[in-house]
Amino acid sequence: MKQLRIDINCDMGESYGRFSVGNDEQIFPWISSSNIACGFHGGDPFHIEHTIRLALKHKVRIGAHPGYPDLQGFGRRDMKIPAQELRAIIKYQIAAVKGLTESLGGRLAYVKPHGALYNAASRDAEETKVILQAIQEIDSGLAFMGLAGSVMQRLAKEAQLPFIAEAFADRRYEPDGKLMSRSKSQAVIQDPDQAVEQVLSIFLNQAVHCSDGSVLPMEAQSFCIHGDNPAAPRILKALDTALAVQKIEKLKQER
Amino acid sequence: MKQLRIDINCDMGESYGRFSVGNDEQIFPWISSSNIACGFHGGDPFHIEHTIRLALKHKVRIGAHPGYPDLQGFGRRDMKIPAQELRAIIKYQIAAVKGLTESLGGRLAYVKPHGALYNAASRDAEETKVILQAIQEIDSGLAFMGLAGSVMQRLAKEAQLPFIAEAFADRRYEPDGKLMSRSKSQAVIQDPDQAVEQVLSIFLNQAVHCSDGSVLPMEAQSFCIHGDNPAAPRILKALDTALAVQKIEKLKQER
Amino acid sequence: MKQLRIDINCDMGESYGRFSVGNDEQIFPWISSSNIACGFHGGDPFHIEHTIRLALKHKVRIGAHPGYPDLQGFGRRDMKIPAQELRAIIKYQIAAVKGLTESLGGRLAYVKPHGALYNAASRDAEETKVILQAIQEIDSGLAFMGLAGSVMQRLAKEAQLPFIAEAFADRRYEPDGKLMSRSKSQAVIQDPDQAVEQVLSIFLNQAVHCSDGSVLPMEAQSFCIHGDNPAAPRILKALDTALAVQKIEKLKQER
Amino acid sequence: MKQLRIDINCDMGESYGRFSVGNDEQIFPWISSSNIACGFHGGDPFHIEHTIRLALKHKVRIGAHPGYPDLQGFGRRDMKIPAQELRAIIKYQIAAVKGLTESLGGRLAYVKPHGALYNAASRDAEETKVILQAIQEIDSGLAFMGLAGSVMQRLAKEAQLPFIAEAFADRRYEPDGKLMSRSKSQAVIQDPDQAVEQVLSIFLNQAVHCSDGSVLPMEAQSFCIHGDNPAAPRILKALDTALAVQKIEKLKQER
Repeated sequence: MKQLRIDINCDMGESYGRFSVGNDEQIFPWISSSNIACGFHGGDPFHIEHTIRLALKHKVRIGAHPGYPDLQGFGRRDMKIPAQELRAIIKYQIAAVKGLTESLGGRLAYVKPHGALYNAASRDAEETKVILQAIQEIDSGLAFMGLAGSVMQRLAKEAQLPFIAEAFADRRYEPDGKLMSRSKSQAVIQDPDQAVEQVLSIFLNQAVHCSDGSVLPMEAQSFCIHGDNPAAPRILKALDTALAVQKIEKLKQER
Repeated sequence: MKQLRIDINCDMGESYGRFSVGNDEQIFPWISSSNIACGFHGGDPFHIEHTIRLALKHKVRIGAHPGYPDLQGFGRRDMKIPAQELRAIIKYQIAAVKGLTESLGGRLAYVKPHGALYNAASRDAEETKVILQAIQEIDSGLAFMGLAGSVMQRLAKEAQLPFIAEAFADRRYEPDGKLMSRSKSQAVIQDPDQAVEQVLSIFLNQAVHCSDGSVLPMEAQSFCIHGDNPAAPRILKALDTALAVQKIEKLKQER
Repeated sequence: MKQLRIDINCDMGESYGRFSVGNDEQIFPWISSSNIACGFHGGDPFHIEHTIRLALKHKVRIGAHPGYPDLQGFGRRDMKIPAQELRAIIKYQIAAVKGLTESLGGRLAYVKPHGALYNAASRDAEETKVILQAIQEIDSGLAFMGLAGSVMQRLAKEAQLPFIAEAFADRRYEPDGKLMSRSKSQAVIQDPDQAVEQVLSIFLNQAVHCSDGSVLPMEAQSFCIHGDNPAAPRILKALDTALAVQKIEKLKQER
Repeated sequence: MKQLRIDINCDMGESYGRFSVGNDEQIFPWISSSNIACGFHGGDPFHIEHTIRLALKHKVRIGAHPGYPDLQGFGRRDMKIPAQELRAIIKYQIAAVKGLTESLGGRLAYVKPHGALYNAASRDAEETKVILQAIQEIDSGLAFMGLAGSVMQRLAKEAQLPFIAEAFADRRYEPDGKLMSRSKSQAVIQDPDQAVEQVLSIFLNQAVHCSDGSVLPMEAQSFCIHGDNPAAPRILKALDTALAVQKIEKLKQER
């Protein structure tokens, strides 16, 4: 029988100096995993440390969320970086967040790449390999969180790195399993009921209803909510209620 | 009897992308400790990792060399940063270099602050305390390298943190024990013989000859050579010869 | 008879990439001068240009708002920068915003330094002189906006540069004419009535009521509202109503 | 008859703070156009201004050399930036260097994109169009310097913007007219005689000898020498001698 624990993850700690992003304090109570910015696409040391403290307080699992060195573009601009430079860039970010986490008595559990780096990895085996090498060189006990069913999952398995397959609660899927482009008006799900339905369908029935009505098989353990989706708090509350009804427990962080 | 091991330290790994600083490859064979830039005043992840590899190859001790977040000013501009932000900034940098070092099989041994942060700490107990807290929160097994005889030494002792007292091989001292300002023409010692004489005088006789001819007591275990002093390679070779004559061994890194 | 035109200024265009600051769209209808970030403490080229367009649309006067090169600290950290470097840093910022303004058919009218640079200039003649030189080298037709009654005003007069004396609508004054430190709970005025009263008292009676009840003479043409004061929109509306009652017209931008 | 004036251009002013790049002082006497970094891929305000002064002293033509916002990658990393953001990024850089140039009594003459932005523009009409719009919005009197025979030349003509067609003195051409990739050992010409031969062949005979011995027609008015080519000073001197023999005059800057 399937183990009925679900993971809800969200990008956190992306504020930079006086520049605020997201709604971390409001979101922490509802999630079980936090992808913490590492200072390159967002997140300065003070906010990173503050966010780790919040994660520990809420017993939320901590992941490093490294991105391209592109503060101005928030790590969402495609960049071509030679493999050995990119590997060092990712290692540096993981090491920084790992050290800060351990200094506060916590444990870094996983790595999820951010933005354009995530997208590049989901399409391109070479980009994924660089990330996997970076993770293994820093700490081979870390898990890799990435797109369910993608090359990220296949290569993590080959590298014998634990993989956390994630799906998106608030993004619509195309029939080919890709996320609908943000340039389309329906790309982001704002209706809490629809988001809840998508999560339960994937988690319980291993299937997602795509934009054209077709059904696609999909297995995922973790579900991403975008903190900058204005509907995020409502979606998280609705999801919490639905999970209670279904007697699905959220992942608990063991420290 | 005094243990006749001497330490020679130099700032390393400060190149940033295509911007080269210093002469690391030429200097590594002659030193026993490397203060490795952490990415804020200089050093990008690729160069940091490359420099750690060089240090390991040359069996040179590795220290983190954190600075103010000021790439344009190379960390040499005075900045006022609130204590809790500064502590996080220093922790982040130490954690990054520590993680990279360990990923390559090395061990981070100490922390030496850079530039304006070093100068502020040598004058100001509050700035030193922030650095000491940062070090202890990341790893209380790390030593703190700072100015011999300064508030840095006193506070490290109070905090029960191992202290590496350093003096400068290539900078002239004022009668009050401060370094002569770089704005004066004689501030930097270019003559290898004078630099060697200063090192031996401090290391063997615990005394430095100041700019006005007076003699000041000074105890130091480590001697800093500035990598951007054009005379650095000549000073290092002359020092090597003189230490051999005096049968003074350089510190050996045990891994 | 005193000319009854009043100027209301506010810092604008400080958002950086995906990092939003302030409430520009909501504030533009109520102000007559916009201090536009220049990219160093905040503001990226896209947001700067967008903000200039908004200023032109609302017929609001455009000023350049240069700051220290300190994005992480939002230009609010004290920094010591050698005069010739600082002058170039300020010139660069003014030139960039001037060129963007002119490319959209507008005219840059003045320069107001930001944050820690403003504070340093208000205390320190040397810092003010560097700013004045920077302005004059770029365009001696520009005005300098600074603290009413400070060394900024005196030196601008000496340099024969037009000066716009500003006072603060939403900050409390100490008896010595300085702004109450933000570390004190009463430093920022949140009550629209009190802010309106302070503006009218200074504009009509050339006097400000200080924190201890004493009255200080003060002459100012421009009044700063902080865009990040949550009360800013309410203060601006209350001020608008009060100015209409008093038949005081706001400055009009002639293009 | 062809007008026998030749232009020699070189990237200048790319140093950043304490990070030095290139050999500007040594190269200025031999060139007729300087492509001055604008602060995004390299060049801080102080070095930019210093370089403009050198250009004026040596009566060398001044161009703005904008790049991607990528200091760590020196503007050589491919980046995808939405058109309206990229246009503002380029406008900002041109405006800054234009303003600094005029503040010193000079005149900005042209714009040449840098690194990955140049390469993208030489392949991609959309990237070129953004650059052309940026130039025209800042100052339609500016010329555009780009790759001879490329889409840059065709679109500049369509936009009725003066075009300076450049070829490379120290890079080898493939038979299809592209530059040989820097990953190949022969990509950079180090032999002064070969560089001189390539320049004269293009300038006098409108033809370049490609890597495979074939001959390709090519018309160019300006020839780029890479300042970071260690052979640059020798190439420039050899070229100077050869031009004198051929009675070809270098472009003179009229102020």
